Amino acid sequence: MTEDSLVAALREIVEAPASERSAGARKIVLGIGDDAAVWQPSRSHLSVISTDALVDGVHFLSATMDPEAIGHRAMAANLSDIAAMGARPVLATIALGVAPQTSQAWLLACYRGMHGLAVRYGARIVGGDIVRSPALSLALTVVGEASRSHVRRRASGRPKDIVAVTGRLGASRAGLELLRRSLDVAQADRRVAEAAFARPEPRVREARFLAASVNVHAMMDLSDGVSSDLARLTRASGCGATIDDVPVHPAASAVALAAGDDARSYALDGGEDFELLVTVAPRAFRHLAGRFERRFGKPLLPVGRLEAEPGVRLAGEGRASALVAAGYDHLA
Amino acid sequence: MTEDSLVAALREIVEAPASERSAGARKIVLGIGDDAAVWQPSRSHLSVISTDALVDGVHFLSATMDPEAIGHRAMAANLSDIAAMGARPVLATIALGVAPQTSQAWLLACYRGMHGLAVRYGARIVGGDIVRSPALSLALTVVGEASRSHVRRRASGRPKDIVAVTGRLGASRAGLELLRRSLDVAQADRRVAEAAFARPEPRVREARFLAASVNVHAMMDLSDGVSSDLARLTRASGCGATIDDVPVHPAASAVALAAGDDARSYALDGGEDFELLVTVAPRAFRHLAGRFERRFGKPLLPVGRLEAEPGVRLAGEGRASALVAAGYDHLA
Repeated sequence: MTEDSLVAALREIVEAPASERSAGARKIVLGIGDDAAVWQPSRSHLSVISTDALVDGVHFLSATMDPEAIGHRAMAANLSDIAAMGARPVLATIALGVAPQTSQAWLLACYRGMHGLAVRYGARIVGGDIVRSPALSLALTVVGEASRSHVRRRASGRPKDIVAVTGRLGASRAGLELLRRSLDVAQADRRVAEAAFARPEPRVREARFLAASVNVHAMMDLSDGVSSDLARLTRASGCGATIDDVPVHPAASAVALAAGDDARSYALDGGEDFELLVTVAPRAFRHLAGRFERRFGKPLLPVGRLEAEPGVRLAGEGRASALVAAGYDHLA
Repeated sequence: MTEDSLVAALREIVEAPASERSAGARKIVLGIGDDAAVWQPSRSHLSVISTDALVDGVHFLSATMDPEAIGHRAMAANLSDIAAMGARPVLATIALGVAPQTSQAWLLACYRGMHGLAVRYGARIVGGDIVRSPALSLALTVVGEASRSHVRRRASGRPKDIVAVTGRLGASRAGLELLRRSLDVAQADRRVAEAAFARPEPRVREARFLAASVNVHAMMDLSDGVSSDLARLTRASGCGATIDDVPVHPAASAVALAAGDDARSYALDGGEDFELLVTVAPRAFRHLAGRFERRFGKPLLPVGRLEAEPGVRLAGEGRASALVAAGYDHLA
């Protein structure tokens, strides 16, 4: 059972034609398969919803990681999904599975991490559920709102679009490597990589800016790595892509060097950078990137192009080679 | 650490005054503490959100229970919360924790149970997350919509209101007892009790009917038992109540008799009946109950009255005695 096969089987159940007759079905604009689902509560208005689950020992280690950072990361992943749809986060609910050894102090610190990040981006935790569980777990649901013209799907990419990202990649994966092994890395790089892993910043403001441009066709967030996420975007858009250049974060280069790893694989396959992946009309890219840089003080980085031919290829050594999606499969 | 103390501590974090400045905060109509949270996506419009978590070995037994029934029950609990706010369910997201021994067939059957019930009430599953987990778990979030005049809080009860329920109570608890022990119960009662536990029916239509009446002041669903839930309603409403009569379900009476238990405790303290608990303006009760019975072919059953004096009392033996909330504490 892989994640993709299970998701496909579950989609068959929930997207059965019978449900199309219901009042709810008429309001659903976008169901399973994007960063978030979209519905239309009123004529003028779209709402967006995203759910993420995290389990102790799988997605975090409660024994060694800062509970505030665990809360921050969990909230960041969901805010990032909402932002990647072009929406403004409004509220969150939390389903909390409390293990026998979980202390109230741990839970409160984790909530402070979730709450602190949520309020910085204008959202509030409004409720949830608390249950006993053999393993400490969190399931977050975040709701956001968008005007109809701002919603950006991953399925809207067009051949010849420039593929770009909002920041250099691989630092979160580098931070994870620092947790896993003892590596000789300069203090400054270590701090940057650890922070990228422990307290990733969802690109909420960048996403609002990009979603406001009609020349940004498709948008999604990088949660599982460019190799997996760009493959999803191209499949959804019915096209392919070639990656010319993947911008490696300097902290990822430093950690990969110390670890004897390929820094480019951190950037291509490392998850949880939470930068945005966008496809932009080629004629408009230079102008948009200029405005982006003036607004945010950092470049919008081109990484390649969408193409009609399916599949994702990696340019280099004079010829393109097929890129294997090596990102995270949550059931592997 | 009890559920109520933990919830109180978490509320302090998420309801900190700093958050009141945010755009999200201005849209939140009702946060933690009711069946569901309420926000206002546009001027004319309210949306409602509720989250529930279930864990294998705590809330269900995957080894012995029908996976379709487990999915049905999980969805029923959330639809019931949405209905109890006076809202119409629209969509659901599912966070699925998949244990090593979980089969795809089990998950698909569980999804069929969730999906089947959701579409019957006009809602659709639009997404979620799938993660590995030491224990099979489900966290459901359901969103609904309501007009402003239909939203019913648990805090709106007024002294002298008639307290009523939409059906006889205790059958779900009786069904649970039948799973736990071998009891000599007539086949008809057994079937009714087992179905009440395995496939409870959320009172979505009854809730819409009741929410349309200005004489229905407070409404909530009975998920943890009348003794706990009425105590919550009266605390939220700043009043108390006396229960004159608790309508015991005939199947609960039959099972309690066979088990040597007090049937009234099944009805008072048994959870997951998912009937609605409403408080109704006394002058309007008879007329409303008549319309309810004509519409649904079953009575709206009075159980007592709200009173100014705090606390919940049980009438009987010539004098009222304080009722101890003996419903389910999710961390006890």
